[in-house]
Amino acid sequence: MSPFTGSATRTPDWQHLRCDITDGVATVTLARPEKLNALTFGAYADMRDLLAELSRERSVRALVLAGEGRGFCSGGDVDEIIGATLSMDTSQLLDFNRMTGQVVRAVRECPFPVIAAVHGVAAGAGAVLALAADFRIADPSARFAFLFTRVGLSGGDMGAAYLLPRVVGLGHATRLLMLGEPVRAPEAERIGLVSELTEEGRADEAALALARRLAEGPALAYAQTKALLTAELDMPLAASVELDAATQALLMNGEDYAEFHAAFTEKRPPKWRGR
Amino acid sequence: MSPFTGSATRTPDWQHLRCDITDGVATVTLARPEKLNALTFGAYADMRDLLAELSRERSVRALVLAGEGRGFCSGGDVDEIIGATLSMDTSQLLDFNRMTGQVVRAVRECPFPVIAAVHGVAAGAGAVLALAADFRIADPSARFAFLFTRVGLSGGDMGAAYLLPRVVGLGHATRLLMLGEPVRAPEAERIGLVSELTEEGRADEAALALARRLAEGPALAYAQTKALLTAELDMPLAASVELDAATQALLMNGEDYAEFHAAFTEKRPPKWRGR
Amino acid sequence: MSPFTGSATRTPDWQHLRCDITDGVATVTLARPEKLNALTFGAYADMRDLLAELSRERSVRALVLAGEGRGFCSGGDVDEIIGATLSMDTSQLLDFNRMTGQVVRAVRECPFPVIAAVHGVAAGAGAVLALAADFRIADPSARFAFLFTRVGLSGGDMGAAYLLPRVVGLGHATRLLMLGEPVRAPEAERIGLVSELTEEGRADEAALALARRLAEGPALAYAQTKALLTAELDMPLAASVELDAATQALLMNGEDYAEFHAAFTEKRPPKWRGR
Repeated sequence: MSPFTGSATRTPDWQHLRCDITDGVATVTLARPEKLNALTFGAYADMRDLLAELSRERSVRALVLAGEGRGFCSGGDVDEIIGATLSMDTSQLLDFNRMTGQVVRAVRECPFPVIAAVHGVAAGAGAVLALAADFRIADPSARFAFLFTRVGLSGGDMGAAYLLPRVVGLGHATRLLMLGEPVRAPEAERIGLVSELTEEGRADEAALALARRLAEGPALAYAQTKALLTAELDMPLAASVELDAATQALLMNGEDYAEFHAAFTEKRPPKWRGR
Repeated sequence: MSPFTGSATRTPDWQHLRCDITDGVATVTLARPEKLNALTFGAYADMRDLLAELSRERSVRALVLAGEGRGFCSGGDVDEIIGATLSMDTSQLLDFNRMTGQVVRAVRECPFPVIAAVHGVAAGAGAVLALAADFRIADPSARFAFLFTRVGLSGGDMGAAYLLPRVVGLGHATRLLMLGEPVRAPEAERIGLVSELTEEGRADEAALALARRLAEGPALAYAQTKALLTAELDMPLAASVELDAATQALLMNGEDYAEFHAAFTEKRPPKWRGR
Repeated sequence: MSPFTGSATRTPDWQHLRCDITDGVATVTLARPEKLNALTFGAYADMRDLLAELSRERSVRALVLAGEGRGFCSGGDVDEIIGATLSMDTSQLLDFNRMTGQVVRAVRECPFPVIAAVHGVAAGAGAVLALAADFRIADPSARFAFLFTRVGLSGGDMGAAYLLPRVVGLGHATRLLMLGEPVRAPEAERIGLVSELTEEGRADEAALALARRLAEGPALAYAQTKALLTAELDMPLAASVELDAATQALLMNGEDYAEFHAAFTEKRPPKWRGR
C-alpha cells in the first residue's frame, strides 16, 4: 500500500466488470458475454475508477484486460449508450465523452503495463481500449473494427486519432478510422497492431503469463519504460534525451540495478524487488 | 452552397487541370499526358485555388486526384519549373516553394477526404501529392520516387519530411527521401504507403468507387475524422482526448447519429445526410 | 575546413575507437572485439567529441559506424560501466547519462548521414547507437536487443523511447523496450528497423559503398534532408511546410541545382559539388 493514501476507501464491489488481483497481477474481465461485453455507462465508470484506485494503491504491477465469452468487446451498447445519448443535453454529452477518454488516458498513464487479451471482436470503444493497452495479445479469431463512422460519429474517439497513427502509421490509421472495416488478426499483426499472435484460444493464457513475468520482474523499470514511451510521444528529441538521463540516474540508485550487478557477478539469476 | 460565401466568384475555367464534379464527388485529373503530367506553375496554382474554392463552397464530399495517360505525375517539369527557378530571385523562390507547400496543406486540411489514384510513376512533387492524400489507391504499375536529392534539392519538399515518417516510419522515410529511389507497388503496400492495391488498370475505378461511397455516407463524420487525424499528429495525448470528446459531443447532436439509431431500431439501412 | 573554426585543436589520437577518414567518408569502428565492443566511459566520450569535431570541421560528408569482430556492439560494459556507476553519486550519474544521450543527439544532429553497419549483436546502448543512425545496413546475423530492463533500468535510454516508436511504431517499440528480447534480422527488416539487408558478412562493405555514394553526391542536399527529417519529427505540419519552403529556396540558389539542370540539358551526368 502506498504511503500516499488519504481518506478515500477502496471500492468494495465492482458491479460492471470483474476484477481479480493475485500476486500483483490484476485481471479485469468485461463480463457481459450475452451482449458481447458491450460497454455501458457503468462499465466505463468502473474502468475509470478502478484504474485510479489501482494507480494510487500501488498494489498492482501488471494488468490484463480480457473479455468473457465469444469476443473481447463489441463497443458501446447500442441501446444503453447510443439510445441514451440521443436525449442528452450538450453538457451531458461532453461528460460522457470525457469519461470514455479518461479511461484511455488512465490506461496509458497508469504506473503498470496493461495487456489486452483479444479474441473475437474488438469493436468501437473495445478496439480503442485494446489500442490504448501496452500489449495486444491476440489469437487468430481476433478482429479489430473502429466502427465509429458507421454510427455517424468521428473515427477520432477516445484518442484513437492520436494513438492509431502512432501504432500503425497515418496511412493505415486513416483507412481504419475512416472506413470502420474489420482488421483480422493476420493483417493486424502485419501492420503492427498486434504485439503477439497466439494459437486459437490461447490469448488469455499468454496475456496472464506475460503479466506474471512483468510482475515478478524489475517492475519499476517496466513502469518507467511505459511512462517514458507515453510521455516521449509528445516530447521533442532533446527533452526526451534529458528525461531518459534523469530517469536512468534515478534507477541507477535503485535496488534492482544493484541486484542485477550482484547476480551477474555471482553468476546467479537476479531476485527482482521492483524498486 | 455554404452560407459563408462573400463576393468571391467561382473560377469559370481551370486551365491547368481537369475538374469534374458529380454527385458531391470531385475528380481532378492532371491532364498533360504527353509530359507524364509534369507540373507547371499553373498546375500548382490551380490545385491551390481549386482546393480553396471547394473547401469554402462545401459542394464536394470527396475528391479523387488522378493522372491521365501512362502515369500519375512525374513531378515538377524540368524545363518549365527547374529552368525557370534558376533565374528567380530569393523572394520569388520563396513564393514558389510556399505555393507548392500550400497545395499539400490544402490537401491535408480540406474538409473532405482526398483519394489519390496512382498508376505508373508518382515522382517528386507527384509523390508528395499522393502522400498528402488520405488514401492512396494504386495498381501494380505504381511506383513512388521522392526524387528531390537527385536534382540537388532537399528530400524535405512540400512537407515530405514531416509526412513520410508519419506514414512509413523514420527508417523507411530516411531511405526514400535521402536516396530518391523508386518504391514499387508491392514494397509500397508492405511499408504502409499504399492504402489499397488493385488489379492492373483499376486504380481510377476503385478510387472513384471509394469516393462515391464516402460522398453517400456520413460525410460530416468522415470530414471530422480527417480533421482529427490531421490535427492530432501535432497534439499531445491529453489534448487529443479532449478534442475527440468535444467532436463526438457535437456529432451526437447531429442528424446522422440519430438516423443510425433509428435505422438500427427499425432494422433498415441508414439514410445518411452528411450532417 | 570550415571558416567557422577558432582555437580548438583536432584530437590527435582517438584512444577508445578507430577513425579513418578517406575522401570525405569517416569510418568509425568500435574496436574492442574481445569484449564484443562493449562501451566504456572513454568510448562514449570519444564518440561525443569526435562527432562534435567532425561537425564543426565540415571535412566529412558521410560516416560509417561499424564494429570489429563477432558483432556490432554489446552495449555498456558490465564491469566498467555498471560496476562503476554503482558507486557514483547523483551528480555523476546524471553526467554519465547525459553524456550517452549527447552521443545520440550528435548522431541525429551532425550535418552528414550516419550509416550503422550491423552484424551480430547490437545490444543495449549498441542497439540505440544503431537506432540513432540514418541508415541501418545489416546482414542476416544481426540481432538488436534493447536490454535495459534486463539490468533493472528503463527501456527509455539515450532517447530510445523517443526514437523507436517513430521508427517501428508504438506497439513494436513497447514490446522491444519493455521486454528487451532480441529482434533478429528478418523481423527487424519486416518492422522497418533495418534499412537494407545484405548477404552474410557484407554489411560493412555495403555501408561503405553507400557512404561513398552519399559523399560523392549532392552532399548539402543530403545534409539538409537529414536535418529536416530530424527537425520535423518535432514540428507541426504548417511549420514543417514553411521550413521546407525556406530550405528549397536556399538550395535553388546552390551550385548543385544549377549543375543538375545543365547536365540534364546537355544529356550528361551531373558533377556534384556538394554545395
